[in-house]
Amino acid sequence: MTEPTPEAASAAAPSDGLPALLFDLDGTLVDSVYQHVTAWHEALAECEIELSMWRIHRRIGMSGGLFLHALQREAGRQFDEPLLARLAELHAAAYLSRAGTVRPLPGARELVKQLSLRGVPYAIATSGTIATASSAIDMLGLPDDIPVITRDQVERAKPDPQLFLAAAAALGIAPQHCFVIGDSVWDLLAARRAGALGVGVLSGGYGRDELQAVGAYRVYADAADLLDRLEEVGVR
Amino acid sequence: MTEPTPEAASAAAPSDGLPALLFDLDGTLVDSVYQHVTAWHEALAECEIELSMWRIHRRIGMSGGLFLHALQREAGRQFDEPLLARLAELHAAAYLSRAGTVRPLPGARELVKQLSLRGVPYAIATSGTIATASSAIDMLGLPDDIPVITRDQVERAKPDPQLFLAAAAALGIAPQHCFVIGDSVWDLLAARRAGALGVGVLSGGYGRDELQAVGAYRVYADAADLLDRLEEVGVR
Repeated sequence: MTEPTPEAASAAAPSDGLPALLFDLDGTLVDSVYQHVTAWHEALAECEIELSMWRIHRRIGMSGGLFLHALQREAGRQFDEPLLARLAELHAAAYLSRAGTVRPLPGARELVKQLSLRGVPYAIATSGTIATASSAIDMLGLPDDIPVITRDQVERAKPDPQLFLAAAAALGIAPQHCFVIGDSVWDLLAARRAGALGVGVLSGGYGRDELQAVGAYRVYADAADLLDRLEEVGVR
Repeated sequence: MTEPTPEAASAAAPSDGLPALLFDLDGTLVDSVYQHVTAWHEALAECEIELSMWRIHRRIGMSGGLFLHALQREAGRQFDEPLLARLAELHAAAYLSRAGTVRPLPGARELVKQLSLRGVPYAIATSGTIATASSAIDMLGLPDDIPVITRDQVERAKPDPQLFLAAAAALGIAPQHCFVIGDSVWDLLAARRAGALGVGVLSGGYGRDELQAVGAYRVYADAADLLDRLEEVGVR
């Protein structure tokens, strides 16, 4: 995929007045955040780096590069390239060994099905790579024409807006007509930078106020709760 | 241990003007919350009960009885006694299989050491049973005379105040001269009901505002952060 161009996307608007929804994946549609936390903890421990679980948790969903950057500051030392590559590899392996315990979040499958039935444009945009995201995506039962933008397709992941800009461009809808639905502050920061409206969900384990503080227009418990109140994001 | 009597405790005050500290264990002194979350998730899955990880997370630290009560409401059915017993057993086994990945939280060992050096009375009060708590307690390097109150010693665990009342009584200090240090809303609710001051830590994965909303007088990142600012809880 080519670098998304905000200009191309900003020309378009939904033809039928319906907004588009851009979904984060981990913690928003699938219950995989805690497996990612545990996998990073295990990868770090294997390299003799100790970091508290909650500090890992609060960084899930941000770009892996930024995550490792923050980690180096906390560990008080620089990691060389081989160590960075090894950590990424160990995390992917540790996550995949737990992928069998990942489930769709309540309401997630029904939500995407309803959006498809009602003709609401939507896409998925995740800071994860296709290697770790594909099994999660498979369990959602998405139609083939739903755009899925992964970390592999953009230069910079969240909180950079590229993933959401690429998802909006794939739908041909301007970001300002999109709602970003995400569980982390990185989603909501990226939404603001993309010029989209941000909606938070608690299903990734953040607190409501953490999401509101970075600009969530509404906060729902999870996909099931959002599905119950779809009119609040303008979906008929 | 006998049932704690608030009356006996309320007569006492610290003889030297120092407050006492009553610590929660999981998520406050040891980094074990995420292992408990994963262990409950596994135990529930084994009994074909699905519950989102974040919903489990937000209940860690509350009484197991209340936890299972809430769970039955969400699952929409009653669990019989054998199932309840099996869940508790499966959780304990699943947690113990992960106990090797539990570490003291940053600053926890240094904090209890400093308190001992400065002669500040302190105790530990956990909703966990001695079976799951003992390995966590062992890694803190506590002196032998520090009271440790577990779920086995009281009738009702947090958010009931019994655990903290028993800890205060064991120190011979009135609850109103105690600071409760905990990572969960259950600790802070129990602190209020015990008549103690509540101090929150983020190291269990709750958001700051969730802790402030239930009455945390201060919120620190973790034990290391609290140790840096001990004067804020009146410790000289």
